[in-house]
Amino acid sequence: MVPRTSDEIDKLLKRLKRIEGQVRGVQKMIEDNRYCIDILVQISAIQAALQKVGFNLLERHASHCVAKAIKEGSGDESIRELMDVIKQFSK
Amino acid sequence: MVPRTSDEIDKLLKRLKRIEGQVRGVQKMIEDNRYCIDILVQISAIQAALQKVGFNLLERHASHCVAKAIKEGSGDESIRELMDVIKQFSK
Amino acid sequence: MVPRTSDEIDKLLKRLKRIEGQVRGVQKMIEDNRYCIDILVQISAIQAALQKVGFNLLERHASHCVAKAIKEGSGDESIRELMDVIKQFSK
Amino acid sequence: MVPRTSDEIDKLLKRLKRIEGQVRGVQKMIEDNRYCIDILVQISAIQAALQKVGFNLLERHASHCVAKAIKEGSGDESIRELMDVIKQFSK
Repeated sequence: MVPRTSDEIDKLLKRLKRIEGQVRGVQKMIEDNRYCIDILVQISAIQAALQKVGFNLLERHASHCVAKAIKEGSGDESIRELMDVIKQFSK
Repeated sequence: MVPRTSDEIDKLLKRLKRIEGQVRGVQKMIEDNRYCIDILVQISAIQAALQKVGFNLLERHASHCVAKAIKEGSGDESIRELMDVIKQFSK
Repeated sequence: MVPRTSDEIDKLLKRLKRIEGQVRGVQKMIEDNRYCIDILVQISAIQAALQKVGFNLLERHASHCVAKAIKEGSGDESIRELMDVIKQFSK
Repeated sequence: MVPRTSDEIDKLLKRLKRIEGQVRGVQKMIEDNRYCIDILVQISAIQAALQKVGFNLLERHASHCVAKAIKEGSGDESIRELMDVIKQFSK
């Protein structure tokens, strides 16, 4: 694997902290007995944020790790793994 | 809105606490520079868990709040709102 | 079931004819050995068009058939059926 | 682009002919004023079949075309294109 830079790590952590906060926000909405539709809109926003982090990781993985594997001759394995995870993401 | 029972609230909060824990788990994976694919599989699991909470809320909303609105004559508005949130969820 | 009007039927058929044409278009692209990415973009467009027809049917079903069922007392069954099909659509 | 073999083309065409038939089947269901839910289940099946064809093309594209591009030094461009189409597919 091509290690992430500290800048990449910081950005990902920042986003995930925000997502964690959003999940806590939904807990609060449940406790406050807020309207279902408002909660659902919020859950939808969290899913979009997670999808974005996922694509970010996927993009980096493809352009660094998979590319490296292809150059080193283990591309087939690496691409199969990539496709499997993409299938999961598209469900 | 038909208020949630304390049992319904407990179950939802329990699930959301677990999801919060999973999001923190992903942060730890990033900090530990874990393999991209493993992180993506974990993000995928969180999305599935959120989807489940969403469907749960949706189901309850349809069978309680929308049904109530239809009986009281404000069904059109309520169904439009329901469809809008379903569209967002299916993206 | 609340029967569709002939206008509703015409609109749906028109859209489905177009989708059928798009599917034939993809066959032609395969035969002409066109670039994978271009074919994928086209398949994506067909999926979006199908999704639209689906939402259209869903919306009508909810505001006509489900609303009718709720008023007539068989709402629970009808809403369960609706949620099942929504889950399938959101996969 | 790495050209498709005639066997690959045959298999893809066979699947797409079946999908075309399914789309015509939905038209018939509309004309026969069939129950919304049954039509929606059928549309869902077509979407799953299209998704399968899409993944098939995507997999082949990644393991042939993208791998070739990476070896020839134009991997960056090729991976960006791949990610763009994956994002569209995951909507």
